Amino acid sequence: MVDPQPTPGPAGEVERPGSVGIIGGTGALGRGLAVRWSMAGIDVRLGSRDEARAKDRATALGDQLQGRPGAGEITGATNRAVAVAERLLLLAVPLEGLDAALASLQDLMDGHILICAVNPLTFDDRGPLPAPTAGTSVAGSVAAALPRARVVGAFHTVSSRELAVVERPMDDDVPIVGDDDAACAAVAALADRIDGCRAVLAGPLRLAGSLEALTPVLIAVNRRAGAHVGVRFSRLP
Amino acid sequence: MVDPQPTPGPAGEVERPGSVGIIGGTGALGRGLAVRWSMAGIDVRLGSRDEARAKDRATALGDQLQGRPGAGEITGATNRAVAVAERLLLLAVPLEGLDAALASLQDLMDGHILICAVNPLTFDDRGPLPAPTAGTSVAGSVAAALPRARVVGAFHTVSSRELAVVERPMDDDVPIVGDDDAACAAVAALADRIDGCRAVLAGPLRLAGSLEALTPVLIAVNRRAGAHVGVRFSRLP
Repeated sequence: MVDPQPTPGPAGEVERPGSVGIIGGTGALGRGLAVRWSMAGIDVRLGSRDEARAKDRATALGDQLQGRPGAGEITGATNRAVAVAERLLLLAVPLEGLDAALASLQDLMDGHILICAVNPLTFDDRGPLPAPTAGTSVAGSVAAALPRARVVGAFHTVSSRELAVVERPMDDDVPIVGDDDAACAAVAALADRIDGCRAVLAGPLRLAGSLEALTPVLIAVNRRAGAHVGVRFSRLP
Repeated sequence: MVDPQPTPGPAGEVERPGSVGIIGGTGALGRGLAVRWSMAGIDVRLGSRDEARAKDRATALGDQLQGRPGAGEITGATNRAVAVAERLLLLAVPLEGLDAALASLQDLMDGHILICAVNPLTFDDRGPLPAPTAGTSVAGSVAAALPRARVVGAFHTVSSRELAVVERPMDDDVPIVGDDDAACAAVAALADRIDGCRAVLAGPLRLAGSLEALTPVLIAVNRRAGAHVGVRFSRLP
């Protein structure tokens, strides 16, 4: 069922990714996506600054999926070891950990596809609000800091809570922004592999700020409705 | 079918709006919403700086709906006359016309509910992108400029093109942000009256920038997919 060899896409890029690495993978989004990708037969390397923590989390997630036929393997390692081993990476660190993560990755990037899912988000007594970013977006800052990475913005609006409810397929569009068509196609393939997710190419990387700014709205809706909403585009063929 | 008398809501506000005014109503969004609201039995006053233009557009839209049972009346007037006559107003001017519109409304606002649907949007050879705004959002600037208006952000993501295709119901959630609960409820009622639209309360006015920033993404998706997409929240009860 699962193709162990990645199939090259029309642009020479991985069309059916066989594995993915997650930088900051022990957080809620990283764990949620790791489980869903594993369920789709994709091997996942979960990264953390703390290797023991990464291994623990990876084992726990693997245990959760035990017995599922065709599940991809979930393993844990340091963030740097993950970046060395994988060409397709998701950056899922919290905003506070971003600068440290970028510094630790800088010398390792060499054409890696780096998916930025970091949401610049803060809270006060009135609820969530967008946190100020250096440029127009976190993804833009990441691209500026890591010029040898091919940065793509995606997975901002996918609920970590819902990802963890593995019995239920997702019901989400995954808007993807980036300037490298082949990298965007690889990320789209990765999104489409999750049951109930649909990749939607949504323009150049300079629109990443629009996706990053959505999360406070989704949280506000969730709080009011007691839900874990996702985003869908209607009238999209 | 249509209740000619607005019913007071639980917060003492209009729950079934009987009429609405549109400032800058001769543009594509204003015309599209005017038609849909008229179809729902709501009377619409279409405003323009140019009274003759407003009347012409109103007549043309009315002609388009002729023969529909229960359609609300669409009339045209100057923006100022619309603001004097209506308590529930939609601000649908283009960004370039915003300052002039605010200046002309300033002395007329007195507890009016003013829905800001203005998108700060610009284009270059790579497509659409968010235009810089004075504060964190256009709606925030409007609220600052018109302290006697009750400003609500809504209708940013609803496609003008699709609104004009009156044979097809819409398929859109309408996220609504604002700090005045009763005003938000009135705007929600107005959104819900459109066939196929669902109002979604989405937090305080300070999140308006997140909704305003979405339009460039929707346009980018549209250009790529040849569609006129809207936004839906999945998993919302």
